[in-house]
Amino acid sequence: MKLTRRNLLIGTGAGLVASGATGAFAQDAHVGHASPEAAPPPATRRGAGRVRTLNGWSLPHRMNGGVKEFHLVAEEFEHEFAPGSKAICWGYNGSTPGPTIEAVEGDRVRIYVTNRLREATTIHWHGLLLPSGMDGVGGLNQPQIQPGETFAYEFTLRQHGTHMYHPHADEMVQMAQGMMGLFIIHPREAEAVPVDRDYAFLLHNFALHPGTRRPDPAVMQDFDLWTFNSKVFPAIEPIVARTGERVRIRVGNLSMWNHPIHLHGVQFEVTGSDGGRWPRGQWRREVTEIVGVGQMRDIEFTAVAGDWAFHCHMSHHTMGPMGHDIPNTLGVDQSGVEEKIRRMLPGYMAMGETGMSEHQDHTDSGHMQGPENTLAMMAGKGPFGNIEMGGMFTVVKVRDDIAPGDFSDPGWYRNPAGTVASRVSSDPDFGAPVRRNAR
Amino acid sequence: MKLTRRNLLIGTGAGLVASGATGAFAQDAHVGHASPEAAPPPATRRGAGRVRTLNGWSLPHRMNGGVKEFHLVAEEFEHEFAPGSKAICWGYNGSTPGPTIEAVEGDRVRIYVTNRLREATTIHWHGLLLPSGMDGVGGLNQPQIQPGETFAYEFTLRQHGTHMYHPHADEMVQMAQGMMGLFIIHPREAEAVPVDRDYAFLLHNFALHPGTRRPDPAVMQDFDLWTFNSKVFPAIEPIVARTGERVRIRVGNLSMWNHPIHLHGVQFEVTGSDGGRWPRGQWRREVTEIVGVGQMRDIEFTAVAGDWAFHCHMSHHTMGPMGHDIPNTLGVDQSGVEEKIRRMLPGYMAMGETGMSEHQDHTDSGHMQGPENTLAMMAGKGPFGNIEMGGMFTVVKVRDDIAPGDFSDPGWYRNPAGTVASRVSSDPDFGAPVRRNAR
Amino acid sequence: MKLTRRNLLIGTGAGLVASGATGAFAQDAHVGHASPEAAPPPATRRGAGRVRTLNGWSLPHRMNGGVKEFHLVAEEFEHEFAPGSKAICWGYNGSTPGPTIEAVEGDRVRIYVTNRLREATTIHWHGLLLPSGMDGVGGLNQPQIQPGETFAYEFTLRQHGTHMYHPHADEMVQMAQGMMGLFIIHPREAEAVPVDRDYAFLLHNFALHPGTRRPDPAVMQDFDLWTFNSKVFPAIEPIVARTGERVRIRVGNLSMWNHPIHLHGVQFEVTGSDGGRWPRGQWRREVTEIVGVGQMRDIEFTAVAGDWAFHCHMSHHTMGPMGHDIPNTLGVDQSGVEEKIRRMLPGYMAMGETGMSEHQDHTDSGHMQGPENTLAMMAGKGPFGNIEMGGMFTVVKVRDDIAPGDFSDPGWYRNPAGTVASRVSSDPDFGAPVRRNAR
Repeated sequence: MKLTRRNLLIGTGAGLVASGATGAFAQDAHVGHASPEAAPPPATRRGAGRVRTLNGWSLPHRMNGGVKEFHLVAEEFEHEFAPGSKAICWGYNGSTPGPTIEAVEGDRVRIYVTNRLREATTIHWHGLLLPSGMDGVGGLNQPQIQPGETFAYEFTLRQHGTHMYHPHADEMVQMAQGMMGLFIIHPREAEAVPVDRDYAFLLHNFALHPGTRRPDPAVMQDFDLWTFNSKVFPAIEPIVARTGERVRIRVGNLSMWNHPIHLHGVQFEVTGSDGGRWPRGQWRREVTEIVGVGQMRDIEFTAVAGDWAFHCHMSHHTMGPMGHDIPNTLGVDQSGVEEKIRRMLPGYMAMGETGMSEHQDHTDSGHMQGPENTLAMMAGKGPFGNIEMGGMFTVVKVRDDIAPGDFSDPGWYRNPAGTVASRVSSDPDFGAPVRRNAR
Repeated sequence: MKLTRRNLLIGTGAGLVASGATGAFAQDAHVGHASPEAAPPPATRRGAGRVRTLNGWSLPHRMNGGVKEFHLVAEEFEHEFAPGSKAICWGYNGSTPGPTIEAVEGDRVRIYVTNRLREATTIHWHGLLLPSGMDGVGGLNQPQIQPGETFAYEFTLRQHGTHMYHPHADEMVQMAQGMMGLFIIHPREAEAVPVDRDYAFLLHNFALHPGTRRPDPAVMQDFDLWTFNSKVFPAIEPIVARTGERVRIRVGNLSMWNHPIHLHGVQFEVTGSDGGRWPRGQWRREVTEIVGVGQMRDIEFTAVAGDWAFHCHMSHHTMGPMGHDIPNTLGVDQSGVEEKIRRMLPGYMAMGETGMSEHQDHTDSGHMQGPENTLAMMAGKGPFGNIEMGGMFTVVKVRDDIAPGDFSDPGWYRNPAGTVASRVSSDPDFGAPVRRNAR
Repeated sequence: MKLTRRNLLIGTGAGLVASGATGAFAQDAHVGHASPEAAPPPATRRGAGRVRTLNGWSLPHRMNGGVKEFHLVAEEFEHEFAPGSKAICWGYNGSTPGPTIEAVEGDRVRIYVTNRLREATTIHWHGLLLPSGMDGVGGLNQPQIQPGETFAYEFTLRQHGTHMYHPHADEMVQMAQGMMGLFIIHPREAEAVPVDRDYAFLLHNFALHPGTRRPDPAVMQDFDLWTFNSKVFPAIEPIVARTGERVRIRVGNLSMWNHPIHLHGVQFEVTGSDGGRWPRGQWRREVTEIVGVGQMRDIEFTAVAGDWAFHCHMSHHTMGPMGHDIPNTLGVDQSGVEEKIRRMLPGYMAMGETGMSEHQDHTDSGHMQGPENTLAMMAGKGPFGNIEMGGMFTVVKVRDDIAPGDFSDPGWYRNPAGTVASRVSSDPDFGAPVRRNAR
């Protein structure tokens, strides 16, 4: 019998178990949270708690003679970054990033990799301690996996921590198309400081030129889409937690920039990397941590009630496309000009005379139109109006009444009375000191 | 009575107290050091020592029923990066960065923010632990502050350390115009390792295209002006200290690059971040520290006598404009060519045949002219000639005889006899080993 | 007698000692490993073990009245990045980087610097604690060294660790041409955790536009050649060690990017920087470490048998030239198009329809030709075929049977039976779960 792909649409744990074709997979696999109406995934447990991959899913396995078997299929498919922007991407098992592989320290794993691309590939298990011949650098450690072939990687997990997988063959092209995934190894023993919620995602970037359908791998820095798990705000899921829970977020980076990741509302601890969980004396308090390309960083914090922005701090990386390289018309009266230009140059979008904040109203209303298949520069509505963000931005939503294991979006935070910045009608009755022509 | 701005020109502490309009402000406020002839600011004290903002100033407050009240006004004004380069910038209270807010752990603060821009804004208090509704993300945590409106933010300071404030509304545009400031919270108790001098500044970048008057917010990486507190060398103040004093420099970054900041002459310790001061066992010795975008880093060292360069180590970031994208004519005989081109293309500046070091002489003498409102690539004169620097560069000046609290420029260092690298007239009498065609 | 350069071709320690002109140099100097047939350099010793500079060499010294004297000559020469790409570069004593200076804590050193360039220069001793007048910033700490002049720097080494030297005069131009070098100070006492092998190199980048012969200093980010010690893969030497040895690699960065350096197969410890060796409690386990511009990082690990990739993790930085800014033709049938274009535009190279991996076969075979003096985008052959890498990439080769002090290339690793990822012929007999249209 030939190897076939059965095209199971994995939606919930229940759906998976119901499928006879995958009956051998472990029942405790966390297999995604694609649809809002789906039953909540199994509760996150302390110690060997399952990871919640933002907008993603974990790959089911089956046991075969004491070995955990996984199957990754490298392939091409259509991917949506957010409603209004799709591309032909490459990834694994129909998604970018590919599914998260989760296993336990000490496990023997066998991972089948089938190449459905039209060029050769391999997989490198980034950060894993394994035999040289399983390390996945094409030409150096193994032959390339040719189109149509299936290779088996097999090794024993001699560590725990936050790791990745990605191709090490035509790497610049294949990663630029979206080929990457998380590889999380849970410790065999309970962690000294257990976490209640365990999130993970990968930073990336895509150069999807206006009107095109495939990411351009030749772009080195000027990207259009800065992504958390290949999604952009507002299509990125919120990070949900109950007040007082200890939350871990594992952030990996396979993009082309060392991104400074910033969390509002708390001081987090940086507790480990793809080099393993660090001794507690090395945990470092930060509110912004640079996650370098080819690095993982685990951050942990105690959740505080509220809606907290969580984003890359590069201001261009929390914008949609069209931010770079547009003409600067600050202070220029443009009455009627934009419409005239757009007649000649479809998709032209000028910066405003007074700034850009008017743009979200214009694009949301359809009054202003960007190029085909291109997101607006700013997007997202909050309880108080336009959030004016895009790209690498989501919200950590912490509430007092969230049940363990409930990851559903709780809506917007209800601020206690008197805790929201608000307009002053009475006179503060003192002047603002100013300093002009400072030296 | 309507809220009015009184346009006080704050020059010195004495000047502030003399002004009846601000009589309610605390007398110990450190309010800038704008003019060379000004009286020195109050002595820096151990423990709760006041911060010295490079080329900047600290915002006075007034007490109102046990609450420290501050008033920030977002507005547009003309700013000078260094003599020869001005732009229409945005900031607070007439300056970019806006004034430094200084307070003490445990304080209740109320900060009025008046919007004099022509588009909506907000302020995010970067790194502060506060109620969700005071966090300042427009649309998410609060309504936008519309032009002409004043909002009040109020919260209790539950931490100490080095923090920032900046808009979280049309962020890419507003920060690119210069909107940012420092927010320093002093500890209530004396620090275990007190410092004698406490400096602070913010890294930033401005894209001021030749001949234009407004920074271009659409530029993502190719900036013209790399700044310490919105100034470029040689307009950046020196950092002054007495030999043996413990000096802290707090460096924050709201630019578009993770800048590696390098100090000559000492090994400094990195002692904390916007996540707070770290435990002493985590203090890390460095001579160069990457300050990521949206990060703060505190560095501390014992001052050693001398004149020590302090700069970003990216060689293009210690140059003025005109460094990037000019034709490479190294090794090309250009006799007469530049003058011919300049007749057609005003402001054209070629790279030299033998390098660029001749340029500073040419531009200093006026023999070579760059485009209007554009600084030369290299600038600065030292005791031994041209320093050939620009952008993110200043000098740490340490002397044996500086009085506590004296921040005035002591001039150039007088080197002890025999401690300056100098020309050899006698023959060292041995050959220099060489290695050509190395493999 | 005038100072002359004797143009000694330093090949091996034996060759140096044989030269009467250099008879005064210390016999234990490690002076490079230029030719494959050369005798191996002296064994690396624990404690004060000599450093192995990748593709480089250490500068001999002579003793003169208790002072170690070195002689650096700043000059221009032809340099080869890898066979097929040469440029007119600037460096010291005929090489870029210049020779590594090695000394011992407590040494008094005198370094003569002769300027054979056509513009002024200086040398800054990056990270060293020394008198202000010896710090090397032209104009600030000393007069510029004019063409033809020789200056003497003299100071006592009051520290140990990993440091650098580079010009601080027309810095943007001079470093872009290759002027830099390592300055390693060994501790006087044995290290608490001694290393068996001690490697060092500098990260850099060169903008060598197709068809040109000199690096372009005006390029800020879009470089063609990303280098380890001014070499690109496959011309970079392997890092060789015996299984179980403790290996240190000292990586410095004088490029224009904060490079994330990644090592396969082990978790390394980051043990120090140009700020000195850190206390053991601060050693941090990683598999990727950002080495910032103007930073040094020491990484240490216990060698594990195998062939392990060691590279910058930026995918464009492990590619040769021609990766950036080429048209994206993924998915486009290009039959015959490339040949037509090349008739008009010599050197044109299109991206493939299915990816880039076909390119290495085409360029290796000569079927596809890039511009003159320009390397292919991918290169390198391993035991299993094309490695498809370039730029900042080399291999750590660890074997069970390497003699102490033997740095010769051991060839490719012989994998134990059953430890290489390989093609599956039998059916794994389970379907790959997929997830399409993931939200």
